[in-house]
Amino acid sequence: MHIRAPYLLFLGDIRNALDAKTASGILDWRPELCAGQYRLSREAVDLGLRDYTPAEAAAAGMRTLVIGVAPFGGAIEPEWVDAIVAAIRAGLDVASGMHARLADIPAIRDAAREFDARLFDVRHGSGPSAIASGRKRTGRRLLTVGVDCAVGKKYAALAIHRELVRRGINADFRATGQTGILIAGGGTAIDATVCDFTAGAAEALSPDNTPGHWDVIEGQGSLFHPAYAGVSLALLHGSQPDALVLCHDPRRTHIDGYPDYPLPTLAACIAANEQAARLTNRTARCVAIALNTRGMSEHERARALAATRAETGLIAFDPIATGAEAVVELLLANLNPPSQACPQTQGDVA
Amino acid sequence: MHIRAPYLLFLGDIRNALDAKTASGILDWRPELCAGQYRLSREAVDLGLRDYTPAEAAAAGMRTLVIGVAPFGGAIEPEWVDAIVAAIRAGLDVASGMHARLADIPAIRDAAREFDARLFDVRHGSGPSAIASGRKRTGRRLLTVGVDCAVGKKYAALAIHRELVRRGINADFRATGQTGILIAGGGTAIDATVCDFTAGAAEALSPDNTPGHWDVIEGQGSLFHPAYAGVSLALLHGSQPDALVLCHDPRRTHIDGYPDYPLPTLAACIAANEQAARLTNRTARCVAIALNTRGMSEHERARALAATRAETGLIAFDPIATGAEAVVELLLANLNPPSQACPQTQGDVA
Repeated sequence: MHIRAPYLLFLGDIRNALDAKTASGILDWRPELCAGQYRLSREAVDLGLRDYTPAEAAAAGMRTLVIGVAPFGGAIEPEWVDAIVAAIRAGLDVASGMHARLADIPAIRDAAREFDARLFDVRHGSGPSAIASGRKRTGRRLLTVGVDCAVGKKYAALAIHRELVRRGINADFRATGQTGILIAGGGTAIDATVCDFTAGAAEALSPDNTPGHWDVIEGQGSLFHPAYAGVSLALLHGSQPDALVLCHDPRRTHIDGYPDYPLPTLAACIAANEQAARLTNRTARCVAIALNTRGMSEHERARALAATRAETGLIAFDPIATGAEAVVELLLANLNPPSQACPQTQGDVA
Repeated sequence: MHIRAPYLLFLGDIRNALDAKTASGILDWRPELCAGQYRLSREAVDLGLRDYTPAEAAAAGMRTLVIGVAPFGGAIEPEWVDAIVAAIRAGLDVASGMHARLADIPAIRDAAREFDARLFDVRHGSGPSAIASGRKRTGRRLLTVGVDCAVGKKYAALAIHRELVRRGINADFRATGQTGILIAGGGTAIDATVCDFTAGAAEALSPDNTPGHWDVIEGQGSLFHPAYAGVSLALLHGSQPDALVLCHDPRRTHIDGYPDYPLPTLAACIAANEQAARLTNRTARCVAIALNTRGMSEHERARALAATRAETGLIAFDPIATGAEAVVELLLANLNPPSQACPQTQGDVA
């Protein structure tokens, strides 16, 4: 799968910035790929890119319309079809992270055939599936987990991965959602797998590796989410993480979209995730809390981080505002395998 | 979906009786549908039915070849294809609970076209999917859960359902696996759903009902299974059970097929299932333990049941050997909504 850049980010007419997390995620982590935005109304979310029509974008050299919105349920809205067809007629490819497949919509499929456009459904086509084996793999793994959806699990993983690489550590970011896949250029859309194979797909995503290597795996959902907890649990079991980073937005009071479901406490979340993770990796432990403090003042952020440290006794950081240095230092100090820390010399008298 | 009886149960050449649980489940609960068995070798599992070739079965009036084996992973073995094609050529329909679709195998698809046979993939085609809403539904629900796969969750649910119906209670058995669907004539193959929609599919399977109605839902997997725990959790959340019945085989020492995974204790299993269930139904509780004691002597069975009662303080029963009377009495005594137990008279002076 090679999706050609530059991208025109399609925002439809959505008003809730949370629903634009695919577009804003690509823009935050791969700004060099993003050349413009395409909105169906002036009231739609504005990412600060220049607005283009598909024809203008094609003339300006853009190659792919990326459906940058991920509304609840992952459907392609009927009113977007004309816009997508217009992009295809203008000469653009289309990439989507929706559950619905682009090629299943006759108008889109027909236009793609006629204008020789390529359609990428990054949520699909992750290849053959296997049942999880539960076999412990070599190499080290970190998984971000959440109190809820959309609290910064992908950003925390990307920030930790970036900091590991900056220090010369051999590490991979493992994408499990459509935005992560569009950022990383690969991965598995874990929430689109058939549930019997979800843990197996998570196992395949972070295969055996060298002892000093870190896979930093993007988490999904929450063990306390009434719709998605099964996805989170399968990903947790298949990932076999040594380290967990719990992600949270301190302003969230209930599960997003589920007003009858109050957020669990951080302590309950840590306990539930550690307990579940230890089924497949007995040494799994939560090492830090990643807070999404976007939009807070400096003072509010400092207070939120301090309160979280006091509440949990763990490192608290914001992947964007404070960076992941502290958690990476802890990973490298405490969690490297002993064979790395004391190579050969101790017990070896030969 | 209407699968025509009588059935010819296909057993392939499998040697492990556990892998024949689809065939033996149909035979145990709907013996009137099962007219013969079709084995590819003399060493294959024998259900005690008369052996037929497909041509003999068709001549004897059988209508459908039911793939009665469910080996690990749910694939259709290459060596079965000739046998299935032979059945089609003899005039039989084919029903399968495999993950793989019959029509995806060219030789089977072509034969079905040529001989006008119908192919039923009961694991598929459960209709449109919805994300779970988490909204509490009306009516009462019981879900069987397990320490492992293949410990009797379907049998426990069927026995409880049968006993409720025998007492004139309005109740439905809700099938979640291929065998249950073939027994009940409907249901949802929950392990074949896309994981984002699994809890939603479980919600749809037991919709709002009248206050005195019981849905008895067939459980899947185990929260302690390294491959399937996510399926179990999604089913648990979507089912919103009032009552849980934990199913166990006292001879099992580790997760079947996973020698590195010891079985959890009953106490750990009860606690984990109750804790998880209370996310979507705060009054969920485990009311009984169903033991699979098949093959034990009378004495061994009595000892196993007594030990389980002593260990958990709960009702212990074998769905086949002792029946489900005790647990149904408890359900009706303690778990009916107050409005049912004390209809109108108490507070109503009008």
